[in-house]
Amino acid sequence: GRDCELSCASFGRIMRPDDANIAGNVHGGTILKMIEEAGAIISTRHCNSQAGEPCVAALARVERTDFLSPMCIGEVANVSAEITYTSRHSVEVQVNVMSENILTGAKKVTNKATLWYVPLSLKNVNKVLEVPPIQYARKEQEDEGKKRYEEQKLDRLETKQRNGDVILPVINPEPHTVGYSQSSLIHLVGPSDCTLLGFVHGGVTMKLMDEVAGIVAARHCKTNIVTASVDAINFHEKIKKGCVITVSGRMTFTSNKSMEIEVFVDADPFVDEPRERYRAVSAFFTYVSLSKEGKPLPVPQLLTETEDEKRRFEEGKGRYLQTKAKRQAQMQQAAQ
Amino acid sequence: GRDCELSCASFGRIMRPDDANIAGNVHGGTILKMIEEAGAIISTRHCNSQAGEPCVAALARVERTDFLSPMCIGEVANVSAEITYTSRHSVEVQVNVMSENILTGAKKVTNKATLWYVPLSLKNVNKVLEVPPIQYARKEQEDEGKKRYEEQKLDRLETKQRNGDVILPVINPEPHTVGYSQSSLIHLVGPSDCTLLGFVHGGVTMKLMDEVAGIVAARHCKTNIVTASVDAINFHEKIKKGCVITVSGRMTFTSNKSMEIEVFVDADPFVDEPRERYRAVSAFFTYVSLSKEGKPLPVPQLLTETEDEKRRFEEGKGRYLQTKAKRQAQMQQAAQ
Amino acid sequence: GRDCELSCASFGRIMRPDDANIAGNVHGGTILKMIEEAGAIISTRHCNSQAGEPCVAALARVERTDFLSPMCIGEVANVSAEITYTSRHSVEVQVNVMSENILTGAKKVTNKATLWYVPLSLKNVNKVLEVPPIQYARKEQEDEGKKRYEEQKLDRLETKQRNGDVILPVINPEPHTVGYSQSSLIHLVGPSDCTLLGFVHGGVTMKLMDEVAGIVAARHCKTNIVTASVDAINFHEKIKKGCVITVSGRMTFTSNKSMEIEVFVDADPFVDEPRERYRAVSAFFTYVSLSKEGKPLPVPQLLTETEDEKRRFEEGKGRYLQTKAKRQAQMQQAAQ
Repeated sequence: GRDCELSCASFGRIMRPDDANIAGNVHGGTILKMIEEAGAIISTRHCNSQAGEPCVAALARVERTDFLSPMCIGEVANVSAEITYTSRHSVEVQVNVMSENILTGAKKVTNKATLWYVPLSLKNVNKVLEVPPIQYARKEQEDEGKKRYEEQKLDRLETKQRNGDVILPVINPEPHTVGYSQSSLIHLVGPSDCTLLGFVHGGVTMKLMDEVAGIVAARHCKTNIVTASVDAINFHEKIKKGCVITVSGRMTFTSNKSMEIEVFVDADPFVDEPRERYRAVSAFFTYVSLSKEGKPLPVPQLLTETEDEKRRFEEGKGRYLQTKAKRQAQMQQAAQ
Repeated sequence: GRDCELSCASFGRIMRPDDANIAGNVHGGTILKMIEEAGAIISTRHCNSQAGEPCVAALARVERTDFLSPMCIGEVANVSAEITYTSRHSVEVQVNVMSENILTGAKKVTNKATLWYVPLSLKNVNKVLEVPPIQYARKEQEDEGKKRYEEQKLDRLETKQRNGDVILPVINPEPHTVGYSQSSLIHLVGPSDCTLLGFVHGGVTMKLMDEVAGIVAARHCKTNIVTASVDAINFHEKIKKGCVITVSGRMTFTSNKSMEIEVFVDADPFVDEPRERYRAVSAFFTYVSLSKEGKPLPVPQLLTETEDEKRRFEEGKGRYLQTKAKRQAQMQQAAQ
Repeated sequence: GRDCELSCASFGRIMRPDDANIAGNVHGGTILKMIEEAGAIISTRHCNSQAGEPCVAALARVERTDFLSPMCIGEVANVSAEITYTSRHSVEVQVNVMSENILTGAKKVTNKATLWYVPLSLKNVNKVLEVPPIQYARKEQEDEGKKRYEEQKLDRLETKQRNGDVILPVINPEPHTVGYSQSSLIHLVGPSDCTLLGFVHGGVTMKLMDEVAGIVAARHCKTNIVTASVDAINFHEKIKKGCVITVSGRMTFTSNKSMEIEVFVDADPFVDEPRERYRAVSAFFTYVSLSKEGKPLPVPQLLTETEDEKRRFEEGKGRYLQTKAKRQAQMQQAAQ
């Protein structure tokens, strides 16, 4: 028999509301993440099973995976993994996922996935190490494994040569322009994002806004950046659970040591509602750039091109000077 | 004296690696989220303090907030909130945040924020309830609060009328076109996303890919959708901690009951590295649309416009027919 | 032999940066949460194993738990659970946790915990259902289980009558006093914190308790601290979704090398319910202080000021000496 301590592993977890969509179906992505975690554990364990250079197994490939039946909130996902083939430098792991309704005892196979891992040295991440061979119960198992190995190797080589396609091109590839750093993200509003009324917490919205604005700032100056201030934000429109929100940011103004970024939040109540996409919130965030020692760095000037960009730059300058004047007045008052 | 049980609250939380950027500075967004949570709790508690219709306080406005000093991983964020003014239908909350280095005992004020909340009925979310008045120690406190209230009210009215600007317009607003549903998100790679080698777990990448693909599918058919399968994915390029990754998806093909979505993951090692943005992974996800009873629904046909879109549709059709043929062969084999 | 499909379960998970403190030691609360999840799965599964009214197992009590060795980021936590006794209305679950370094293969026992669950009807949460009896391999197993059952029942009755104490803020406290290190946090109970019955998972509560106790301990000795043990915790009162919970901790006793912290959990069902804030759980946590090399450090003595503080210090000393005596007796027994 095989030593299952080494080459098998099984895991379970209760599915929570945050793992699922509003209809209660667990996201495919949640399941893929569990599958990969099981594969990473078992293959890293195997590759370190013989004394030698310590290594971490890195995912090289996932074979086509079907989602055979839906999994629901409250069910237990049982994930079991087994090493089914080893080549000199790679490990094939078979992962099976079963959903278990612990109230009825009903179990269903939801996925059968095959993953390939490669051991990378912990000391030198560019060095691929050798994989200790596994023992096969029958010679055919090894032969079939070798066939699968050759097939996937071919496919990997092919896709490596396939040319990169681009969906959303960078609007302006010139550094320091508005188009260069502008960024956006989408977020599916989950249950933990919402209050008892079923609307997104203002704090969740602000966190996403800061995330986008921070990326805009970092793209502009390519240094460590931190939030310096947020202008007043008004929350006119509520955002409901199940909406998709698009948070987008663009730089409007730079002073010597700061950047102003305008952020928009648009809500798309795309399921269950006749309403169109609407603007929920907008705000201005100000960032500063810091050196490794935490000292403020000069900020590259924003290059404005269109009339709108120039106008927004002037407006931003107005806000900047106003805030500066206000602060100086406060300091003089405090000094008296 | 005031009854602080009702109108004050204070608490602490340790800042974790995922709350911060790679330089160890806590994200402004993390702090804004804590501030808002404290404000929501204290104002909801206050608005329910007198017998009456139960309600939840919803954030209406945050005043301009400065980040006075950076907060770091391992420090304790001490958040204290106090109700400072009540009008008939709104509550003003003052929230102060202090960072505390529990190893040295050093404390610094990091934020002073002012938030306005409005109580909404739990039964009828469109009904704004009355706020129980607070007691002021001195008459001037009430007068100053009233002044702040009037000022913010004006500003809220103004921004409500300001016209909505758009950053990334929907590429094609015609329903069922490729441009209509295409979507993308950006994600800053945090420490908990990574293996011991400091590279993103494959499972984390796949979860984000499924998230974007699911939004594309839902935008296309505006129903509850679930992942049906994922084609083989090759992970040629590693993604390092601190990168920004852009995950974008576009629909390539629809059959009667399924949608194929192509997803790209691009990594942007924008801090600390000379390397340009690169394509890390791409894959095809297939989704089905489900009715409320969990039955498969017909999928609206994808409208292709450009030559590229038509070519990709045909390629998708090829993959679809090939998979279908393979499955039928397997079923016949199993039946024999 | 026993049918392990039904009465055993095992789970594994990689420890991430967010599961640990800045020294890389996994928080005791993270481990307690995993232990409770395993216990909840296995006992809910068992209680539903015979056709009958569907139910969810709710945590009633956790026996005193020692943290035998620290767990680190990157290690795999292997959690295995087994049902060891059933009374008419309760289930005893034994959960063992092992840390596994998948690079070296080294495994260490980190915890052995005993938990008691009670099955509550899914339809009527106030109805306790009957537990299907398990089969014992030997008669002595049943007798010993019955003895443990009677003992914990007595202890649960006792603590139910214990009076609720309150932690009040102290202005300008002196280092090493009780007031100096006392801490609290508030948490709004979200959907993912809750079981199918809509009540907070015991593990979620314990994780928050450990977080507060850890802050108290770190504030007192300003070093890296780790959880050494948790005294028995009784969960008399359920906490519903939508509640705000306040978790507060104060130091009660210090020995040369350890600190005892009392933690209270108060629930505030502030919306939707006429009920007042109530004490849901309380417990004693013990921490030790570690040097950078992981060696235990001396702990500064707690300065007690009020009569109550002095009394609690003496009570803590009593618990400390009792535990010490018990451990010495066990070691002598083991040595014979």
